[in-house]
Amino acid sequence: MTALTEKAAENLVALRKQKPLIHNITNYVVMNYTANALLAMGASPVMAHAPNEVEDMVAFAGALVLNIGTLTDDWISSMIKAGKKASQLDTPIILDPVGSGATPLRTNSAKSIISQTKIKVIRGNASEILSLRDENSKTKGVDSIHSVEEAAESARILADELNTTLAITGPVDLITDGAKVLRVSNGHPLMAYVTGTGCTATATIGAFLAVDNDPLSAAVTALAFFGLAGEIAAETASAPGTFMIQLLDALYTITPGILKERCKIQG
Amino acid sequence: MTALTEKAAENLVALRKQKPLIHNITNYVVMNYTANALLAMGASPVMAHAPNEVEDMVAFAGALVLNIGTLTDDWISSMIKAGKKASQLDTPIILDPVGSGATPLRTNSAKSIISQTKIKVIRGNASEILSLRDENSKTKGVDSIHSVEEAAESARILADELNTTLAITGPVDLITDGAKVLRVSNGHPLMAYVTGTGCTATATIGAFLAVDNDPLSAAVTALAFFGLAGEIAAETASAPGTFMIQLLDALYTITPGILKERCKIQG
Amino acid sequence: MTALTEKAAENLVALRKQKPLIHNITNYVVMNYTANALLAMGASPVMAHAPNEVEDMVAFAGALVLNIGTLTDDWISSMIKAGKKASQLDTPIILDPVGSGATPLRTNSAKSIISQTKIKVIRGNASEILSLRDENSKTKGVDSIHSVEEAAESARILADELNTTLAITGPVDLITDGAKVLRVSNGHPLMAYVTGTGCTATATIGAFLAVDNDPLSAAVTALAFFGLAGEIAAETASAPGTFMIQLLDALYTITPGILKERCKIQG
Repeated sequence: MTALTEKAAENLVALRKQKPLIHNITNYVVMNYTANALLAMGASPVMAHAPNEVEDMVAFAGALVLNIGTLTDDWISSMIKAGKKASQLDTPIILDPVGSGATPLRTNSAKSIISQTKIKVIRGNASEILSLRDENSKTKGVDSIHSVEEAAESARILADELNTTLAITGPVDLITDGAKVLRVSNGHPLMAYVTGTGCTATATIGAFLAVDNDPLSAAVTALAFFGLAGEIAAETASAPGTFMIQLLDALYTITPGILKERCKIQG
Repeated sequence: MTALTEKAAENLVALRKQKPLIHNITNYVVMNYTANALLAMGASPVMAHAPNEVEDMVAFAGALVLNIGTLTDDWISSMIKAGKKASQLDTPIILDPVGSGATPLRTNSAKSIISQTKIKVIRGNASEILSLRDENSKTKGVDSIHSVEEAAESARILADELNTTLAITGPVDLITDGAKVLRVSNGHPLMAYVTGTGCTATATIGAFLAVDNDPLSAAVTALAFFGLAGEIAAETASAPGTFMIQLLDALYTITPGILKERCKIQG
Repeated sequence: MTALTEKAAENLVALRKQKPLIHNITNYVVMNYTANALLAMGASPVMAHAPNEVEDMVAFAGALVLNIGTLTDDWISSMIKAGKKASQLDTPIILDPVGSGATPLRTNSAKSIISQTKIKVIRGNASEILSLRDENSKTKGVDSIHSVEEAAESARILADELNTTLAITGPVDLITDGAKVLRVSNGHPLMAYVTGTGCTATATIGAFLAVDNDPLSAAVTALAFFGLAGEIAAETASAPGTFMIQLLDALYTITPGILKERCKIQG
């Protein structure tokens, strides 16, 4: 995966040089942390959800991040409006279907967004991603999926069906565009003790999509970068509070050289 | 209070083992900090407020936390909907009547939630709690209440009237179910300089309610635990920024043994 | 500027003594950080936006902070309602027109608030402030304004036209009431890597307006104080995560004496 390791460094250089505007329509819980993470890594975040503004705002953006974490019908409607405009403009969209599979509103909203917009990447945990399969697939047992690896083949088929790239994050992240399946093993267990690390991984992929046209490569390199920030944070922090602050620091201090050296991407 | 000291340790063990889902319908200001605190102590937070989802979500939850900090009519309506479902399911509910007594909207909303749902614990400061008494009681002078101790007898009567447990927090916390009155003296003055420590104390009681059927014991042990986290944070932090981060760390690092040893619960 | 240097120290003393209630109707991204900053410096923040509450709440407040960062029509409507009440009561109002000039909704909303309420201070970056000029002015080239200094003369004219005080923040802040033009050079480049430092500078001016009747002096001294907190934070922090925490600490630890000594205010 030398090519992707090089690409990770290139993407980070491009991100810090271009400082792309990343338009986020995301949940209340993570807005602050996500905005700080995007700023720390070198991007320029904006949060805007008004139905009479989202089309204007997304027109300036390098990528659109949609996250259904604290969804209501009117926010979903704004997400779809922004997503349709982004689709017209060929602006990359990434979706985080938070809690899809847990309640009908979440599963239906995620599917509705997917069906009405051109999503480049969907990032979630194994259950969230697999909940997006159709009813027949679901009856095969989303609940029985416990690990990223168990979800691998289903994810590959689903990516192919949806014509998108899926990123399933966990101890080892699995990324597939339906043809290739790649894995990223950067990361640290303390990430699970900070709210919004998944959502912020999604936003990081958004930032990388703004500088890398290939969704598979953007997702893989972004997850390696974000996971490495977790590893570096854990070198000085051993509990969630200091860890989440050190993680922001790491997003700022990681150099392209360090990223290239410490990327853990496997085929 | 040896029994409660033991219970505090037991509750912390149970919380970390069971990792109960805590459903929060809370205010925008504290959502992130509350979610991080719940994660750090070992619970599993979810924030969800959509009227067409709250009943589905609360059905999975070990406890429901209602907080009116940035209330609007539609959020109160969702809180009542979730609260009614939780009441049916016997899922414990805790209410934080933020600012009750300050504006009619807050006082009326808090009373409306209380009258339509089965609240196990209400946590607030002295003025907030006493504002929940009826009009005749109020004319006796909510404004004249300056300390937790001055509110003690009124709180005991109110707990009895409302058939709930009241937790009034301050330098010394007072907890009463109408029969017993208990006090917790864990805590640190810097907690008043971090937004959402009250709201997060409420969420902590929610987490303890998910593993302890007795509201009085759940509230007392949760407040001792949360207050102790403040004390431990202040051992290394002397200003609010680092203090709020160290407090999250302490919620993660406090062991049941340390909690048992340093609990300050009085009858 | 010895007089203003003295005034800065006096305002900080008054703020910590009076602990004024600062009513914020602000954006989701910065609510937590702003509340923590206000608490750390000695003020008492409240966030409340319900249309059926804002008039009651602002009646208790020492200042009203309006921020359109994550605006929607209903929030703007609440801002105007609160602003009208504050105007009647002569309670000082500060506006942060986040993103004005970027989308029609933002520019129009900012202008609508300004035309319907008595704003004491408007704080923004150069583009935001200059977007508030009328159409003829705008065609002279808002987009060509790149620095605070280039905006100086336009800002002075605009302050005069709007009968308000304008604070344009950047590497050097420029504050003008249409007659005088003052500059503050406290601050640190890492402030640009933390979300909400602009919004929190606005809230800090709000807190100072609650204890200082002169908008020019309140804005100048508040920006010197907030900028100094950034400088002090950077003495121990070299990346955005730790920096934002150290900045909160500095707001708490800066004494009036230190502020007087390190204020950088120029005519």
